[in-house]
Amino acid sequence: MLLITNMKDDKITLGHGSGAALTRSLIHDVFVERFGLKQLDDAACIDNKLTFTTDAYVINPLFFPGGDIGKLSVTGTVNDLCMSGSEPMYVAASFIIEEGFSIEQLKVIADSMQKAAIEAGVKIIAGDTKVVERGKCDGIFITTTGIGILNDSPPLKAENIKVGDKIVVNGSLGDHTVAIINVRQNLGLNPPPESDCAPLNEIIKILLKTKKLVFARDATRGGVATILNEIYTDSGLGIIIDETSVPVKESTSALCGLLGLDPLYMANEGKFVAVVSDLDDNSLQKLQAHKYGNAASVIGIVTNEVQGVYLRTAIGSLRPLPMLASDPLPRIC
Amino acid sequence: MLLITNMKDDKITLGHGSGAALTRSLIHDVFVERFGLKQLDDAACIDNKLTFTTDAYVINPLFFPGGDIGKLSVTGTVNDLCMSGSEPMYVAASFIIEEGFSIEQLKVIADSMQKAAIEAGVKIIAGDTKVVERGKCDGIFITTTGIGILNDSPPLKAENIKVGDKIVVNGSLGDHTVAIINVRQNLGLNPPPESDCAPLNEIIKILLKTKKLVFARDATRGGVATILNEIYTDSGLGIIIDETSVPVKESTSALCGLLGLDPLYMANEGKFVAVVSDLDDNSLQKLQAHKYGNAASVIGIVTNEVQGVYLRTAIGSLRPLPMLASDPLPRIC
Repeated sequence: MLLITNMKDDKITLGHGSGAALTRSLIHDVFVERFGLKQLDDAACIDNKLTFTTDAYVINPLFFPGGDIGKLSVTGTVNDLCMSGSEPMYVAASFIIEEGFSIEQLKVIADSMQKAAIEAGVKIIAGDTKVVERGKCDGIFITTTGIGILNDSPPLKAENIKVGDKIVVNGSLGDHTVAIINVRQNLGLNPPPESDCAPLNEIIKILLKTKKLVFARDATRGGVATILNEIYTDSGLGIIIDETSVPVKESTSALCGLLGLDPLYMANEGKFVAVVSDLDDNSLQKLQAHKYGNAASVIGIVTNEVQGVYLRTAIGSLRPLPMLASDPLPRIC
Repeated sequence: MLLITNMKDDKITLGHGSGAALTRSLIHDVFVERFGLKQLDDAACIDNKLTFTTDAYVINPLFFPGGDIGKLSVTGTVNDLCMSGSEPMYVAASFIIEEGFSIEQLKVIADSMQKAAIEAGVKIIAGDTKVVERGKCDGIFITTTGIGILNDSPPLKAENIKVGDKIVVNGSLGDHTVAIINVRQNLGLNPPPESDCAPLNEIIKILLKTKKLVFARDATRGGVATILNEIYTDSGLGIIIDETSVPVKESTSALCGLLGLDPLYMANEGKFVAVVSDLDDNSLQKLQAHKYGNAASVIGIVTNEVQGVYLRTAIGSLRPLPMLASDPLPRIC
């Protein structure tokens, strides 16, 4: 397990793209001051009316059980928008394509994008296509950028989190990473595990409607533990996760045991981490009745008893869940 | 000179990224119907209030006289926004970086972006960073996405163009392509020609204020002739360009003669093609007094005397300026 290290190295490494601490350092070091960025939320907020977010998708492989780069590029941006409490509305898509790429595959990818857009209720309204020489990219990279509308409420912010708030996830962790590892490493798991790639804008409304939702993020690169560490950094409040409450599929647990991976640090593409001031049984049941929430659970609590993020293990001990410097699996999204 | 060909080939070619007819065919064939796109303007229009545009920048080399990929990525998106008649406001930037890329160079690029953003009066407010393995991209690709605000007027549209309207450009054509060719081919021209890379949102206001501006585009990939052919396709009206009025630097003319290139088809990064119902001398002088308009000229007229786009040559003959299938120079932006 790599802990955060000093970023004296002057070359970009794969770790800088992992979404973990090295990415955060790079963004702080290169972009935050130069661009005068005030926040590092999933989506920027414009005049408390619009949200605006962009993401590049470089996933390898392009096609995987449960999705493809097209679906991912739309749901990922939809999720960034709705996690701020906004309604995702419009998407722009920019394609960088390698010479020799199959036009039929491009059509399959575009179909997936449109299908995901319809499910999420967003419109793809702008685009761009560039082609680079063979060997100068890897098939296709897609950048999507989204605009969301903030209705009544101000954007969800980590600074509103308080001691006693609960941590909720909407289902089993690590499914996306497991699906990708199985394909990429030819593990031949049968049935092949599926990515959880899905738009979260409908299910998050269940929590928005309770008026008890304080903060939310989709737990992609770096997984739930990275989000929790960001919450700790931004709010200054400790978090304790109850290991026995964390939903993980048996097949994921088994693979993690074999490969030395931790589901709390693995990427999801259809899972949120929500901080709520309260969650009544009725709302939890509504989450669990939703197709993207069947294993929804309260997994932890915000506390001032610890500094940092900790896991209370099955035997009752407290184990730290630090920010990792890097994710061991590049190009997971 | 390649004329438009049937796109039966099922692989992506460099021509599909040229911005000329093959790009248009690909976009129509793959994206327009799937995404339900209604327009192929530089920027999409949302509720007659906002404009929204995205562009990937894959230029090679990354640094060139007059600019770099950072400056280009901001000015290009600013120009797409202002050509619809909107005020560019916000930019999101997504970075795909090759493992091993210099962090110092990344800082230089980010500095260029911020400098360009300040000049153009836009804010870079959202971003994303992905890293791919060595050899899986070419240094760095940047996608920028912009939001503009439409103030009083509806967006400029080709359907409002009428017979008798005049075609205006704000300066010498082909400067960006010449700058890139000189560096890429090691031509060693001295002094090295500079790209015209610049934000056009201030100079276009001179025309917007006259209330006679009907349509505008920035003449990037495919050059002025490609824009004129798009205008012909979208408006159904012919265009005749007067060769003796087309501003081209002597050094560009000389290089084009040697290499068999045509400035009318070469990429610019700081030149617009505007269609105006009229242009009084005072406004033309204002254009020419602007730092990005010193060679501004009326170069042609909209007419129903021809079908298509034609050049009236210096000796008085009419030569067709067809839509090219492809631009011979890939990765110009």
